[in-house]
Amino acid sequence: MATRDGSAIWKGDLQSGSGEIMVGSWTSGYSAGSRFDGVIPGFEGGGGTNPEELLAAAHAACFSQALSLALGEGGHVPRTIWTRARVHLRIVDGAPAIKEIDIETDGDVPDLDQETFSKRAEEAKNTCIISRALGGVEQINLVARLRDS
Amino acid sequence: MATRDGSAIWKGDLQSGSGEIMVGSWTSGYSAGSRFDGVIPGFEGGGGTNPEELLAAAHAACFSQALSLALGEGGHVPRTIWTRARVHLRIVDGAPAIKEIDIETDGDVPDLDQETFSKRAEEAKNTCIISRALGGVEQINLVARLRDS
Repeated sequence: MATRDGSAIWKGDLQSGSGEIMVGSWTSGYSAGSRFDGVIPGFEGGGGTNPEELLAAAHAACFSQALSLALGEGGHVPRTIWTRARVHLRIVDGAPAIKEIDIETDGDVPDLDQETFSKRAEEAKNTCIISRALGGVEQINLVARLRDS
Repeated sequence: MATRDGSAIWKGDLQSGSGEIMVGSWTSGYSAGSRFDGVIPGFEGGGGTNPEELLAAAHAACFSQALSLALGEGGHVPRTIWTRARVHLRIVDGAPAIKEIDIETDGDVPDLDQETFSKRAEEAKNTCIISRALGGVEQINLVARLRDS
């Protein structure tokens, strides 16, 4: 089992805010090694990025915007949402598959409690456009931490 | 309706080959404008990349490797596979959703006919890890062109 990681930061409300996307090892080059190392024996090593890392970055970026929207609708525009996504790649029924993604998000949101933050994060996990497209992924695990302000 | 595009080139067999991934407007910055322009009124403009563009790049990269594998297994290691993916973002039941992706691939493969190339491309479309993860996407449209060699 291996994970491929990406992350994103979003600052402010959805419409006027802005963000940054980070891909684990962003270069334009990619290889089978960077993709299947730790997943398929014989594919060790190899440089560059891989599709799962890009998917992780896309998911983290999408989730961060969805959470900004969910918080903003409740009157709690976030100062910062920082999200990491880990795409699990493992052999399922003889072929590599993505069945699980971990999302871990940290929020800096004025005047909000952890319980409401967790609730909004759960909503964002379900409404995020990328989450909905990923119908073949059986499990999206969420950790949502509100920063003490 | 709008599409967000990414592409990838793969050269050689899956295990020892290598590739390049191109994201439409790759910068680390992203915005709601770059994502929802042409999809949701009021979100015109805005710079940077967006999650759909990264997903398109991931899909093109995954498909190119899957096609290299499918061709290699039949004894036809490709010189070059060049794939563009266009992720359609449109409003479905009141919310933006990804229900359709276009994949267009050009192959430079010695001693192969278009019919076999199209068949292998269809297989790659179905077996590609990212295609399988995207269970919420109802339609993946494929155009596969073999270059005359």
